[in-house]
Amino acid sequence: MTSEREVQEVLARYVRATDARDGKAQGALFTDDAVVRIHAKTGQGTYEPVGEPLIDGVAVRYAVENFMEPHPEGGSSHHTTSDCIIEVDGDSAHLNAQFVVFRVRARRRPETGWTEGALGAQGTVEPYESGYYDTWLRRMNGDWKIVRHDVLMDMPMAIPEV
Amino acid sequence: MTSEREVQEVLARYVRATDARDGKAQGALFTDDAVVRIHAKTGQGTYEPVGEPLIDGVAVRYAVENFMEPHPEGGSSHHTTSDCIIEVDGDSAHLNAQFVVFRVRARRRPETGWTEGALGAQGTVEPYESGYYDTWLRRMNGDWKIVRHDVLMDMPMAIPEV
Amino acid sequence: MTSEREVQEVLARYVRATDARDGKAQGALFTDDAVVRIHAKTGQGTYEPVGEPLIDGVAVRYAVENFMEPHPEGGSSHHTTSDCIIEVDGDSAHLNAQFVVFRVRARRRPETGWTEGALGAQGTVEPYESGYYDTWLRRMNGDWKIVRHDVLMDMPMAIPEV
Repeated sequence: MTSEREVQEVLARYVRATDARDGKAQGALFTDDAVVRIHAKTGQGTYEPVGEPLIDGVAVRYAVENFMEPHPEGGSSHHTTSDCIIEVDGDSAHLNAQFVVFRVRARRRPETGWTEGALGAQGTVEPYESGYYDTWLRRMNGDWKIVRHDVLMDMPMAIPEV
Repeated sequence: MTSEREVQEVLARYVRATDARDGKAQGALFTDDAVVRIHAKTGQGTYEPVGEPLIDGVAVRYAVENFMEPHPEGGSSHHTTSDCIIEVDGDSAHLNAQFVVFRVRARRRPETGWTEGALGAQGTVEPYESGYYDTWLRRMNGDWKIVRHDVLMDMPMAIPEV
Repeated sequence: MTSEREVQEVLARYVRATDARDGKAQGALFTDDAVVRIHAKTGQGTYEPVGEPLIDGVAVRYAVENFMEPHPEGGSSHHTTSDCIIEVDGDSAHLNAQFVVFRVRARRRPETGWTEGALGAQGTVEPYESGYYDTWLRRMNGDWKIVRHDVLMDMPMAIPEV
């Protein structure tokens, strides 16, 4: 497998862990000194930080397990990425990807069965977040790990005050 | 071309054949002993089968030609995939991909021309299905063919009773 | 990096330049004799040209800078591509990709703060255009440049009369 593909598959595992709310799998993708920051767009090409940075895989795991909203019954999501630009330089790599997040809500089958005329997938798929992932990785013992991960959101985030 | 890319392009041809409702092109991507199964999600990580499995490329072709709803006038679709995880082991390969399906409906140009103020693409693009493809392939005479294809839908499917 | 990946990253840079309305970056991806044409679908597998072809990178740059609608305040877009089929033959390459374009509109934070109950990304992400890019590239002095780019839109385009 090429190094570029290895790097891209780290991102593929990252989005699966996010959608599965699997903090352990997510945390394992990061180094002990990783820095994760979320930014919200304030204008063309300008951003402001959202909340405090997360430091290291343990913090990432904690955040996934404690701060990500669980899926409701019938709910799931897809963090999809596209159009990766990847530069590998020895054991260091930089990745930039577009992302679009979809919220999926399955309809529950009525006890009396689907209504007449219902055909195909029953539920809704709706995009609701987008932006860019800008990510640095380091190869350690043959595995690529994320050392810095900036999530550049296209929109401002409303965060409950603590 | 790397083996991983070859495998990924089988998926790229699969989605094009699906969107074109091209049963012949679709069937040719599968081996004679291929098994295709559709599953609907019943909970976090759990699925139930939808209908009977399809066995072999001939059945796949038949299904595309006879069971897939044709596009209406102005209609098209895009089965898009993302974030592939691919493992190649000699002449065997495993692929896991996210998918989101979009329904496209083009507006028909009024005989009197577009209404004043209309600008850009005239029609709608709407996501309506999503899930994961989980696929096994085998290299035969230099070409990768699908031997097993599981479509893991995020939603239940309403199927007309026969 | 493999040639296929190099070709795919030209497309990744193309969509970023489009979304950033960066005519200079966009124009630099094309050769001096490049031909860019937009087509609108008229039926299953049939298309008609939209407007006149653009010839060369200078024209591409001019078009991006003068004909593409600027993003409004809070606005952005993502031209996402997927399921690339790439054939490289020496210094020539052919690429076919699906595309879906998303329009992003960020909500502006009210001066009195987000309304109670607001949570997460504030704004909308909406697909509104789709189709296929069919693209030929040539390797010149080690860099892949686009020589021919056909944008196959799924929908008709309303264009203001000049």
